[in-house]
Amino acid sequence: MGGDFAPAREIEGAIQAIRQSDGRFEVILVGDSAVITAELHRHGAADLFPPVVHASQVISMEDSPTAALKAKKDSSLAVAMRLHQAGGAQACVSAGNTGAVLSAATLILGRVKGVSRPTIGTFIPAEDGVCLLVDAGTNVDCRARHLYEFAVMGSIYFRRIRNTPNPTVALLNVGEERTKGTETVLEAYQLLEKSGLNFVGNVEGRDILKARADVVVCDGFVGNIVLKFGESVPGFLKARLRRFADGGLLSKLATGIARWPLKVSLGDLDPNLEGGVPVLGVNGVAIIGHGTSTATGIKNMILRAADVIAGGLNTHIEAALATPPGAEESR
Amino acid sequence: MGGDFAPAREIEGAIQAIRQSDGRFEVILVGDSAVITAELHRHGAADLFPPVVHASQVISMEDSPTAALKAKKDSSLAVAMRLHQAGGAQACVSAGNTGAVLSAATLILGRVKGVSRPTIGTFIPAEDGVCLLVDAGTNVDCRARHLYEFAVMGSIYFRRIRNTPNPTVALLNVGEERTKGTETVLEAYQLLEKSGLNFVGNVEGRDILKARADVVVCDGFVGNIVLKFGESVPGFLKARLRRFADGGLLSKLATGIARWPLKVSLGDLDPNLEGGVPVLGVNGVAIIGHGTSTATGIKNMILRAADVIAGGLNTHIEAALATPPGAEESR
Repeated sequence: MGGDFAPAREIEGAIQAIRQSDGRFEVILVGDSAVITAELHRHGAADLFPPVVHASQVISMEDSPTAALKAKKDSSLAVAMRLHQAGGAQACVSAGNTGAVLSAATLILGRVKGVSRPTIGTFIPAEDGVCLLVDAGTNVDCRARHLYEFAVMGSIYFRRIRNTPNPTVALLNVGEERTKGTETVLEAYQLLEKSGLNFVGNVEGRDILKARADVVVCDGFVGNIVLKFGESVPGFLKARLRRFADGGLLSKLATGIARWPLKVSLGDLDPNLEGGVPVLGVNGVAIIGHGTSTATGIKNMILRAADVIAGGLNTHIEAALATPPGAEESR
Repeated sequence: MGGDFAPAREIEGAIQAIRQSDGRFEVILVGDSAVITAELHRHGAADLFPPVVHASQVISMEDSPTAALKAKKDSSLAVAMRLHQAGGAQACVSAGNTGAVLSAATLILGRVKGVSRPTIGTFIPAEDGVCLLVDAGTNVDCRARHLYEFAVMGSIYFRRIRNTPNPTVALLNVGEERTKGTETVLEAYQLLEKSGLNFVGNVEGRDILKARADVVVCDGFVGNIVLKFGESVPGFLKARLRRFADGGLLSKLATGIARWPLKVSLGDLDPNLEGGVPVLGVNGVAIIGHGTSTATGIKNMILRAADVIAGGLNTHIEAALATPPGAEESR
């Protein structure tokens, strides 16, 4: 109920997901049952779903995450996450308040053994392929150990979701040399070097869009800033082209034609293609979607949840973090 | 002598600068006098310059900055910087090894009183106008006081070079709220709030290309990564369009037409337009250019040096840092 266009797009997306599911999964809708039921009837789709689970409250985009979770025990998010925690669902997906979904996942599901900080990674479309940037904004102040854990979780996520047996992992840094970077990053380099991961060293800001590594590790401060900068590029391009088009008839014509190659070439920058990102390191499967998700975005978020469930990430994360980096060799 | 195409482009750019100078300045060439003199004769331009100052050594792009400065006392960079320090020139410009120029400026010129960390800021073209990102990669590990100094120096630089009486200053962060960010950034927020600067609070990664503030302050780790990411965007776009063009004759045609609006719209992303960036906070005027500068880039770097000399930045920086942030009010 907390998304910007909830519950209309949520329900439309859920219907699309069910129709694509081949019976692999069911979707339980959680929220104001009167509103949801009416919307389902409008689509003639009530029989596609199990009974709606009622929740009387909504956490808004403006709510402070932890305060809202305390105050609104009967919010659709809290009810859905508890349903998942109790085993009534194998995953919980939401396009609501990001911080609240993250807090609900961490507080209600708890952390996987060995994980000190749950994290979020986002796939960034590159010239060729994609690159997973992790942490994408969850943890702003990080120690080396946290970066190491992000690398482990990111690597496992990439392996399972992108079917890559041994994804390359790199540290986002200001130079390729191992002597570069902040004290935290220098220390993380040493941990990663000793780890069993396919660590390829440092990459720079310019290497992200080239996908020089499958998984690029950074703290959430850098991750958030790079991601948001990247998200602003299409808008920048549009604004510049609009100004050029204003220059006359010929400019307008050329810009009109340019829209076709640009639209196709940059089509995969649409966040709705990914749908949502899992909270890595919590005891369960919690997927966070964009607040402005389209129905397709919601559908893809649900399909991503099914993939993550099938990937069994958490067993692998727990196993990987059970041994300290380097311990494999010293045994 | 240390640029990627030195001394050919350096000399070509210097000739262009002299021809545009209206007698406002002279350019002294420092380096291998035989090579430089031959190149000047090739251009028939020897009489445009005062005698070449000979330097027998060159710091290469691969040299470690501080080690090279120690070992190569007679490098063109060291000789030129000492010439400036001794008063034989009012500025020193170089498209050589960035770290070495930075070190030479700091070690040979010394710091302006009140400055703990010299810094570099870079203008980033925005949808409309530009934004100065400071620190652009000089200081990776920063405390709040350093960010405050970057803000002061960036603000003065923006004011003098862009003729903006009271530039807006913002802190690059993961959210607009004052409670967001790392501990260092939270502390820097308080210092900036108390300062006499036109501080407008936090901006996010997406606000840079919108120039939501004239001066955007961050540590050099974040600054370097965001800048290099941004610099990789045109290459990403080109690679994607090339792939689209391979799709057939019509795709090739549309992409060919698209090149015109794109080239005009993104023309100001060429770093040669800015030419070079000053090292802010050193006792003198040292300008660092891109190693791959074109002759136009070298010309603009020299013109930028003339602007910075005329702006008298250092007196303003020293005065601004003489009073601690907030002291103006408490008196």
